[in-house]
Amino acid sequence: KCLFGSGRLNGENATFAYEPRVALQTRRARAHALQTTFCHDLVAVFREALRASWKGVPAAPEDPLSAVSELVLDEEEDNLRETQRPAGTNKIGMVAWLITAKTPEYPEGRQLVIIANDVTIQAGSFGPAEDRFFAAASKLARQRKIPRLYVSANSGARIGLATEPLDLFQVKFVNNDPTKGFEYLYLDDAGMEKLNAKGAAASVVTEATVATDGKRHHVITDVIGLQQGLGVECLSGSGLIAGETSRATQEIFTTTIVTGRSVGIGAYLARLGERVIQVEGSPMILTGYQALNKLLGREVYTSNLQLGGPQIMYRNGVSHLTAADDLAAMKSFVRWLSYVPSARHAALPLSLNNQDGWDRPVGYTPPKGPYDPRHLLDGTLAEDGKTWLSGIFDKGSWQETLAGWATSVVVGRARLGGIPTGVIAVETRTLERVVPADPANPNSNEQRIMEAGQVWYPNSAHKTAQAIADINREGLPLMILANWRGFSGGQEDMFQQILKFGSMIVDNLVNFKQPVFVYLPPGAELRGGAWVVIDRTINENGMMEMYADPTSRGGVLEPEGIVSVKYRHDKQRETMLRLDSRYAELVKSGDKQASAAREKELSPIFNAIAVAYADLHDKTGRMAAMGVIRQAVPWSESRRYFYQRLRRRLVEEKSMELIMQARPGWSSVEARTFLESVIQVGLEDVEDGDMAGLIEQKQAALVEALEGLKRDAALAQINALAAGL
Amino acid sequence: KCLFGSGRLNGENATFAYEPRVALQTRRARAHALQTTFCHDLVAVFREALRASWKGVPAAPEDPLSAVSELVLDEEEDNLRETQRPAGTNKIGMVAWLITAKTPEYPEGRQLVIIANDVTIQAGSFGPAEDRFFAAASKLARQRKIPRLYVSANSGARIGLATEPLDLFQVKFVNNDPTKGFEYLYLDDAGMEKLNAKGAAASVVTEATVATDGKRHHVITDVIGLQQGLGVECLSGSGLIAGETSRATQEIFTTTIVTGRSVGIGAYLARLGERVIQVEGSPMILTGYQALNKLLGREVYTSNLQLGGPQIMYRNGVSHLTAADDLAAMKSFVRWLSYVPSARHAALPLSLNNQDGWDRPVGYTPPKGPYDPRHLLDGTLAEDGKTWLSGIFDKGSWQETLAGWATSVVVGRARLGGIPTGVIAVETRTLERVVPADPANPNSNEQRIMEAGQVWYPNSAHKTAQAIADINREGLPLMILANWRGFSGGQEDMFQQILKFGSMIVDNLVNFKQPVFVYLPPGAELRGGAWVVIDRTINENGMMEMYADPTSRGGVLEPEGIVSVKYRHDKQRETMLRLDSRYAELVKSGDKQASAAREKELSPIFNAIAVAYADLHDKTGRMAAMGVIRQAVPWSESRRYFYQRLRRRLVEEKSMELIMQARPGWSSVEARTFLESVIQVGLEDVEDGDMAGLIEQKQAALVEALEGLKRDAALAQINALAAGL
Repeated sequence: KCLFGSGRLNGENATFAYEPRVALQTRRARAHALQTTFCHDLVAVFREALRASWKGVPAAPEDPLSAVSELVLDEEEDNLRETQRPAGTNKIGMVAWLITAKTPEYPEGRQLVIIANDVTIQAGSFGPAEDRFFAAASKLARQRKIPRLYVSANSGARIGLATEPLDLFQVKFVNNDPTKGFEYLYLDDAGMEKLNAKGAAASVVTEATVATDGKRHHVITDVIGLQQGLGVECLSGSGLIAGETSRATQEIFTTTIVTGRSVGIGAYLARLGERVIQVEGSPMILTGYQALNKLLGREVYTSNLQLGGPQIMYRNGVSHLTAADDLAAMKSFVRWLSYVPSARHAALPLSLNNQDGWDRPVGYTPPKGPYDPRHLLDGTLAEDGKTWLSGIFDKGSWQETLAGWATSVVVGRARLGGIPTGVIAVETRTLERVVPADPANPNSNEQRIMEAGQVWYPNSAHKTAQAIADINREGLPLMILANWRGFSGGQEDMFQQILKFGSMIVDNLVNFKQPVFVYLPPGAELRGGAWVVIDRTINENGMMEMYADPTSRGGVLEPEGIVSVKYRHDKQRETMLRLDSRYAELVKSGDKQASAAREKELSPIFNAIAVAYADLHDKTGRMAAMGVIRQAVPWSESRRYFYQRLRRRLVEEKSMELIMQARPGWSSVEARTFLESVIQVGLEDVEDGDMAGLIEQKQAALVEALEGLKRDAALAQINALAAGL
Repeated sequence: KCLFGSGRLNGENATFAYEPRVALQTRRARAHALQTTFCHDLVAVFREALRASWKGVPAAPEDPLSAVSELVLDEEEDNLRETQRPAGTNKIGMVAWLITAKTPEYPEGRQLVIIANDVTIQAGSFGPAEDRFFAAASKLARQRKIPRLYVSANSGARIGLATEPLDLFQVKFVNNDPTKGFEYLYLDDAGMEKLNAKGAAASVVTEATVATDGKRHHVITDVIGLQQGLGVECLSGSGLIAGETSRATQEIFTTTIVTGRSVGIGAYLARLGERVIQVEGSPMILTGYQALNKLLGREVYTSNLQLGGPQIMYRNGVSHLTAADDLAAMKSFVRWLSYVPSARHAALPLSLNNQDGWDRPVGYTPPKGPYDPRHLLDGTLAEDGKTWLSGIFDKGSWQETLAGWATSVVVGRARLGGIPTGVIAVETRTLERVVPADPANPNSNEQRIMEAGQVWYPNSAHKTAQAIADINREGLPLMILANWRGFSGGQEDMFQQILKFGSMIVDNLVNFKQPVFVYLPPGAELRGGAWVVIDRTINENGMMEMYADPTSRGGVLEPEGIVSVKYRHDKQRETMLRLDSRYAELVKSGDKQASAAREKELSPIFNAIAVAYADLHDKTGRMAAMGVIRQAVPWSESRRYFYQRLRRRLVEEKSMELIMQARPGWSSVEARTFLESVIQVGLEDVEDGDMAGLIEQKQAALVEALEGLKRDAALAQINALAAGL
């Protein structure tokens, strides 16, 4: 609107009296009193977090924020504008910025939208104006396909009462005696006139009646109120941003930092955005503890943290990460962002500062017994306290999420030779799950339940499924270091819906859009249902591949189980007869006592032989022969192998995507054949390590072929359309 | 392949010796021993169930099955063929049919695919051949977009051991003494030769070594086996059909009847197909109880029903319905089918035999106190035991599902003037939830937890979300009779992930494709978060509409809650001063004692007045004024209103769909404008009851306009494509 660009005072009246700094200082103090950062300081906090991410990286920029615009909603035109206005100019309890930030992965800058409650305006409650603004800012992020960070500090949906009739309404008392109770609220003629004089006739709905004293009573049937933000309209606005956030979660990278406190719709927005970083001391609640105490009729709860603090929300997988303070939370966000493409469907952000080259063996080898699966990923110090035993991923790149929930599965993100990757690994140790006692239920006790390693429980299956969905939406490939003996099938686990959560794993892998490598690490097992729900055939688009270390095992049951069905005592005796000449002789001689004694003596050995025979069916040789794994990959070589393979798959998928775009409707087989004709070699014959170079070398040919393809497709389509005319 | 069509003996050798009936009888008996119907009798059971559905309908067909073909997979060509072959000819443990069935909704016939395990072949286990066949039959149903029924009676993935090396392998014993243990399994040269002679050289992988006695030992490193169906290949096959079923659930109407028992992949297929009808005495399990007892080292469980019988699976929402026997289960399936279109995205099946006309008031009115919400839906007898008080839906059309789980929400399907509709209603009574004690956990006790009506708990929120997803996939519109005071926000409910399940409600409504009517019935309340997650703005495509009976209430908090924040004692005192002249005089007189006494006397009354004032904000007048409901609809008129409205929306959506198909890329606003130009009247100006007639009347114009639109779209596209060449 302004002819002179969008300077700091753009849109302000020329005689605008700017607010003195001290007003900001008061609001800042009010925010701090609510244990959160004043929203207008969040950009500075984000800048600090970015600076920290540049630490040790050469050529760090002076200011990592190359552009910051505050977003303002022009309510009349329903139009979101970028402005440069003084901090604290906002009139509503919600602020947002469009920011271009320089990160080590995107030194030229990447965009994101930050939305935050302003707790200094009406306690950060959500009224219709706040809701419309939130929805518009979120939609902007969706349109640009860029990440959206929501900083949640609020008190839920706004409440209020209409003020206009408040000092005008009359009460029809029973027998006109106020101590006897009342019949209805009304306005008399004078009250009606006064309300009209206020211009607030629309504030009430009345029905006129003539009272016993002959006077006209305008009985109030509904109070409407002139202001917005009293009741249901706030709930409808909350519904608007709940739906908007649900869509955003599907379409872009959404994260929420929970600070201060998040109430009602605030708590729901956090969960609807899936990725939650919860600051300690900042609860997410639906109902405040005082209100609950009132409902329960006694002093049960003493704080909101009992209801929705990290001890609840981190342990049930609502909060993915916790942080000591807002800066730490922002640093976690910046780190998470570093794994994610600048926009949905953009190329993966490669780490340009990777110190840990892909071309090395994996140093750490897991022991026979239980161990911490994080060592497989991130490496660990040897027992001598000096030697570094490296993991499969880049040193220091592992970021775990949801660590407080369902600890028998470990999920997070890491880098493989600089390529960001989602990771799922399996705990092998037995860990304790604590279910807190609810103070409101006198019969409840704290329960401590031991959960064995290598077993899927309802909670860890749910966590696995949730992580797959999150990683898929982030556009990352996925590496599953599979090591499960199966699903736990006892009565409690069946009752706790293990079938539903196991099925969710399948549902989420069916929809996975990037490559998934399922790999059995050394000594790992994958049995029965656990194999079924991550088998490569689940994904129809060929996104999944399976591999196994030669020391791992896969099968329907463990060998002991197979033997107890298929190689039982009678068959073991046949083997004994064949292989122990002495037993054979004793049987032949008819000396039943002696043969029975020999049989008893040998029976444990021959049972072990039977188990060994069954176990030979579960090795990688058979997996490869049956075609259920692509090949056996030794653990020490796994880093090199999967780096090459992943790069190859990414390059290949990108090429296929371009072909499918140029020629919509082609099957993947047709696209594959086309690609092969361009690179003049069968894809099966290209070594993984050569693929990227080959595509680069044939780039000109590929571009030309794609142009031709587009032309052909257009002509074919024109013909088809013309024929239909 | 056969020149002479596909008769009963098609594909059989001319000298084929057909199996005597007695063989079938033996197999039938074996199936019965496993407490299930012999799979080849299922078509007859289906016929019986169909016959029952025709009961009382005029012009019932003699045979409701107009075509039955058994499906056979030609493994070589990977091609599914329809055949007419004698029952029991199957060689693998899986059978399937493509059936055309006449139902009262589709007297001309509707198609479906039935797939069933054959428990008489290898105990109904899943081997690779069974898996490929299952996948092909399911894919056929997906291609035709027709319903798929799976009858699950099985023993999970197949297991086995290779037989070829079993009588040939040698064992290297420690010191050649079998009692001392052994080192490895091997074949000697003679054994290798014998294996070769069997043509089974590929059955093992060996590494040759020279033993201490100078002989060559071919150490066995892997056993492969010549037969398929021993181990991992069965798991991979299970993965294939798990993925296939997950896709089928998204694309078509999938249902599973669990009979006999369903183990492992069998149990997973049931859940992955979502809709489960469980026959009593037929468990769904992951691990058999004996195997669990062995694992636990003691006799904990005494039956598989303890693990996955209806008392577990019906109570946790895995089983939607239970049935006394296979025929009852099939009848439930046929009834469910009656609500569902013949193919995905086809028009809704209208009941042609509806005795309960749409043009009547609703007879039943709920009382002030708690009541059974099913009476709202289906009606009930008056207290006199004679007068029928009708519900909102067609009499007798209500079919509840998931009734065993999370009883504070009631979900199912019903008909509104013959139109099938998904239904969600709310329990107002306090009911008991029973969590069984797990025999395996000595610390666990049976817990009985009281759940209040009108409150969403984690389980009932989950149930609501699941029902929305199911109904959406069935292509039905949805009526939510909303009556929730909110989400339960105590510690236990927060810990039990109420935020996740509440968010699932939003996620599933965002994706809803048919009209959704949210309606507050008489005396209902909708507050806070409960309103938020079902607000109409959640669905961006305008599929949701909200309505309320004039006696219902909506707001952020209950009036008492608002008063405790916004109309507290000091403000109430002001009202008292204004309205009670005696109190005003006493205050003026300065007699503090007397004024305090009066104040105390009046204080309960004026608190009630404040609550009444706040309550006036929560009425339908304000909801309508704020635009959050389309209008108030009185309960007694609701049947007439929603029937007209639903018909109108369905006709309108169908027209919009045709326009969007003719002109892809148009916004819904553009499509709307186009439709208005064709029918020559603004959509807002058309009464609901006139819409269907209007569209019918303008049908010729609409068809012509659509043709023109297609032509325009084609020309525009041709121009755009040509410009790009």
